[in-house]
Order: sequence, then C-alpha cells, then structure tokens
Amino acid sequence: MRAVDVVQKKRDGGELTCAEIDFFIHGYARGDIPDYQASAFTMAVFFRGMAPAEIVALTESMMRTGEVLDLSDLPGPKADKHSTGGVGDKTSLVLAPLAAACGVYVPMISGRGLGHTGGTLDKLESIPGFNVRLSLAQLRAVLRDCGLGLIGQTPEIAPADRKLYALRDVTATVESLPLISASIMSKKMAEGIDALVLDVKCGDGAFLRGRDEARTLAETMLGIGKGMGKRVAALITDMDQPLGRTAGNALEVAECVETLKGRGPTDLESLSIELAAWMVHLAGAAASLDAARTRVREALASGAGLERFRRVIELQGGDPRVCDDPSLLPQAEETVAVRSERDGRVARLAARAIGHAGMLLGAGRETV
Amino acid sequence: MRAVDVVQKKRDGGELTCAEIDFFIHGYARGDIPDYQASAFTMAVFFRGMAPAEIVALTESMMRTGEVLDLSDLPGPKADKHSTGGVGDKTSLVLAPLAAACGVYVPMISGRGLGHTGGTLDKLESIPGFNVRLSLAQLRAVLRDCGLGLIGQTPEIAPADRKLYALRDVTATVESLPLISASIMSKKMAEGIDALVLDVKCGDGAFLRGRDEARTLAETMLGIGKGMGKRVAALITDMDQPLGRTAGNALEVAECVETLKGRGPTDLESLSIELAAWMVHLAGAAASLDAARTRVREALASGAGLERFRRVIELQGGDPRVCDDPSLLPQAEETVAVRSERDGRVARLAARAIGHAGMLLGAGRETV
Repeated sequence: MRAVDVVQKKRDGGELTCAEIDFFIHGYARGDIPDYQASAFTMAVFFRGMAPAEIVALTESMMRTGEVLDLSDLPGPKADKHSTGGVGDKTSLVLAPLAAACGVYVPMISGRGLGHTGGTLDKLESIPGFNVRLSLAQLRAVLRDCGLGLIGQTPEIAPADRKLYALRDVTATVESLPLISASIMSKKMAEGIDALVLDVKCGDGAFLRGRDEARTLAETMLGIGKGMGKRVAALITDMDQPLGRTAGNALEVAECVETLKGRGPTDLESLSIELAAWMVHLAGAAASLDAARTRVREALASGAGLERFRRVIELQGGDPRVCDDPSLLPQAEETVAVRSERDGRVARLAARAIGHAGMLLGAGRETV
Repeated sequence: MRAVDVVQKKRDGGELTCAEIDFFIHGYARGDIPDYQASAFTMAVFFRGMAPAEIVALTESMMRTGEVLDLSDLPGPKADKHSTGGVGDKTSLVLAPLAAACGVYVPMISGRGLGHTGGTLDKLESIPGFNVRLSLAQLRAVLRDCGLGLIGQTPEIAPADRKLYALRDVTATVESLPLISASIMSKKMAEGIDALVLDVKCGDGAFLRGRDEARTLAETMLGIGKGMGKRVAALITDMDQPLGRTAGNALEVAECVETLKGRGPTDLESLSIELAAWMVHLAGAAASLDAARTRVREALASGAGLERFRRVIELQGGDPRVCDDPSLLPQAEETVAVRSERDGRVARLAARAIGHAGMLLGAGRETV
C-alpha cells in the first residue's frame, strides 16, 4: 500500500477501507508517512468528506495509536462530557464534581482554547498550583480518591490526533466535519469511559454558528460513539450569548464555585445539571433521566459537588481555599480571555458578557 | 502574510493576488514555507482551480525563482515546441534540427518520461555518449554553433517548479490543469524564447484522453503565453495510436534519423514538419505559415536538418555515426520503453505499436 494512493483515492471521492485508514494513520503516527502527504490527505478530506464508516475507522485508528485507559478496576461506571465550546462555556467545572458526587467516575481529558473559545485547562490553571499535567497513572489515583480528574491531553493519548491536529492548524484543514469529529472522539474514547454526553453549541458565541451545522456535527459524533459501542447522547444548546455572567479564566472559576454553592447564574446551573444528569443516566447510575436529575440536584444542594471540586483541586496540587475565598484567584484579568484575534464576534460577545445575566436555555435546547 | 492564510483563501475559492502567489512560491522555493503547506495548497488548487490571472502569476512566479535565459546575443529568433506527450511521440528530435536549419534557434529544455509517455531526454541518452546535462553556459555555446541544444531541466531553471513537481508526484496533486500548465510554461518561458508551439495530444496514447480536456489545457497554456507577452500557438493532435512505428528510446532515435533522411513514417514526418513550420512562422523567420512549411520541407529534403542533428549530437558528446549506422544504438531494447505500471493502456498501445504503420494526422488535427 502507498500513502499517495490513499490520498488519491480520497481525492477522487472513494470510500477508504479500514485497512487503508489504519495504514495511513499509524504510518503517520510512526513518522513513516510525512507531513506533506498527511496535509494533502486532510485537504482532500476537507473537500470530499468521509462516509460514516470511514469516520469511525479514522477515530479508532487515531485512538489506537496511543494508550486506551482501562479503568475497569474502579468500582463504578465512567462517563465524560465534551462540549464543542463557546465563549463563557464553563460547565465542565460544575458538572464533573456533580457527576462524581453521584457515583460516576469522570476521567476528563480536556483541551486548551480553540479559536475564540476558552479551554478548560486554561481555566483550571488560574487556580494557584493546579497541575493539569498528570500522568495517566496519577490521573487514575486522583480518580480513585475523589471520582474525577481533570487533565490535559498527554503524549500517550491518541498521538496521531495530536500530530494531525497541529498539522491541520497550519494547513487550513481544521474546519472539516469528519476530522473535527474524529479528533474529539479519538481522545474521548481513549478515556476508557462507558458513556459520553456531547454538548454541541450553536449560535454567535459558539464554534459553529448554525443549528444545522451543530446538528450534523452532533449526529456525526453520535455515529462514532455508537460505532464504537458506547452509550452517547448529544444536546444541542444555544449559545447566542455567553454562558453565565463571566468570560475570563479566573472569573469563570469563581463563577463555577458560586454555582456549586447554589448561587450561580441560572443558565449555567441549569445546563450543568442537565449535562451531569445525562452522564449519570447514560452511565447507568440512575434508573431514569428524571431520577438522574434529582440526584444531581441533590448533590448540588447538599454541597457534595463542591466538596468533590475542593478535593480534586487539592489532589491536583491546587489551593482548595479558592472555594472559600475567590480573591485567591488572579485578579489582573479582566472580562475577556479569548485567544483568537480573527473574529470581531469575540469583542462583541465579550462586551455583551459584561452585562449579561439572562437565560440561555429553555426552548433553545434540543436533545439528539 | 502567512502561508496558512493563502492556503485557506484558495481552499475557500478565493482568487489569489500576484503578491500572495509570489509570497507562497518564493517562500516555498527558499524553504521558508514547508512541504506540508505546499501540498495542502496544491490539493486546494486541485479542487478549486485557478483563474487565468492566477495561473499567469503562478507561472511567472515559478519562473522567477530561477534563471531566465537571455539569448539576445544570438543573431536570430528563438522558438521551442512543447508536447504534452504520448506513446511514441518523438517529434522533438525531428523538428528541432529542421527549425534550426531554417534559422530559428531552438534552446530545448526537456523532461523525462511522465506517466506512460517516454521523455526526450531518455531517448537522447540512448545515443552513446550524448550528454543532456549541459550547464546553461554550455547550452548557449552549442546553440551558437548549430542552432539547437537539447538538455534536461537544470537546477537554475524554475527551481520552485522542480520542487513543487516532486511534491505533487507524491501527494496526488499532479492532475490539476492550472498546476500542469504553469509547470510546463514556467520552464519553457525561462528558455528566453520569442515563440512557442504547443502540441497538445489527446486520445488513448496521450496523457489526456479527451479532446475537450486537451482543448482546455491548450487554451490555458495559450493564455499563459499571451499573458507573458509571447507568441504562442497550440495544435491539438490525435494520439489514438502511437506516433510513428516505434516506441522505445533507441528505436525512436533510429526512426527520427530515418525521418530526417526523408524515409520516416508519414505521420511522424507530417507532424514534425507542421510543428517546425509553426515555430518558424511564429518566430518570424518566414512571411507566412505556408512559406514556413515550404522552408521546413526544403530543410528536410536537402538534408540540412539531418546535418544539424548530426552536429548537435557531436557537440553534446554523442556519437554522430548513429546517423549513418543505427546498429550503434543499444540493441537490447525491445519495443516497449514506457515507465508507468499503472495503466493497462500502455501494454495495449505497445502491442499495437509493433504492427502500426498508419496515419495519425489529417482530419484529427486542429489548430487552436
């Protein structure tokens, strides 16, 4: 098999076999296939797309270039959430402790900011001392102790995706639905989880603006999850306005702490509860979605979620006193902490974020 | 300016400016822009195409990464022919000496075999001692002496094209009309010629099978030539069967010698005379195309063409006695000397070539 023939087959609209995709992705991960063939490939995929079976094969292949966590020794179901991201999106820091408090292990491997959206890692690192660079062994220990762990992508997780994503970033091949979906899912599926909830955001504040695009992305990722034998659900949520009242790493952490204390903005609280409930439900830790919602609300009201957050901060080297005294978080930061300079939307959204306190959810939310 | 933005603009169907194309091509030639961005670019061009102005800019830009011959000290017009190639195509070795004998300098920089077509250089190298690797200074000296010189692409000529072609070959981006046209023309326009005749072949034995494709390629190259202020004409010629009776480097050289002696196959003789006449006409060395045809026929009949061929062989280190004794050419070779293994057509054509002695031209020929 030759890499150039795989590129040409995709260029000409052919459907690649699992063997062809494996050959290409593993060859690329090993360095046998050079960057210039990989970028020609990703550009061909950009134009030609991929069939569902190809996308599943691509995801599996990227996942298998690295380690796949085996958490079967942990006595309980494992679940995670992935959000496609948007300005002010900070649900991870609320829902992960809540789900953990409901008996679901949450081995969350997150990313940095992408485009104009802030990343979970960036937010966590505003907590003094918080270390997101745990090894997988360290993650396992943290999980066993407190039920959740919050780390960054490690070299062991889907290295082909890591390499390919860096390449796509400099070759104008980021915006491809199959590549986006496979990239997300290859990392999530490596977490050793039983269930995954997808929060696919659309609107002015989101990576994807249109509802149709969001629905297509959601369906693509659901297809991958099902193709890989996992329980997956997707919520399409509006993000025409930033979520919560703040955008900015330290401000967002403080807002999450407030939310875990039951004093957060309604939109952030509602969405975090809903996503956590889906995790608990899909993971099989509650008899129904409604029962899961009740359990999550209880974990919030009792302060059990906050205690999990405090504990994970401590276990990951951070200062847990930020949960009591937000002034321990960096103060220099102003409202805006978005990385991209490409988009005028960012400034507009940030400006809007300052005064924003309304609802995002309700009629706008849709479950796929 | 950033390379990734140029790739993205093309990916999204934008028309690149001269400045953007110059930035990308010169940056690539210098090594500032890596292969992986160049291959993403060529794949985007494969899908999006290029506007006429972009193709001219690309050609000029690739040409200007290297040396452009200045032959103004040679006392006469300069012209060349380019063929898109096909099995058994060997007109160069006949028409270049004929045009030179009519007072036109022919600084011919040729390629190797491409796909299933044999290359002029490969054929010349079957002449014992023939050196196609002259420097540009040596080419100039040979030209001054005998009116023609036959060399391979040197590192000084359009290095960006050389580098980009090698990249396209391994990234499935060869078959792009703008890239093919610009590649051909960047090298030809660097020869310092006043006029260029394009022999665009179509049919089973040609690089392009369809007449419409051939016409589009011809028009694209004409557009480039005109955009660069040169006199250019294109003939679209049928190549449903191999040209002449032979396919195979040494056999083809022998057939060209026979043709220069007036004993060649009718199809090869007719096409060679026609192309040479166009060169003489466009170069301004004859008052009309008809007058040019007459002059070329006279150069053939008088043996003046053969003498030029004998002389160029001698000047380029070859054994000119092959013109008298074809047994001095390598004998081991059988009928087929085609390089690609991709295409069943090759075997079929080669088989057909063995017994072929018919006409190719006539109604099938078309002038653009």
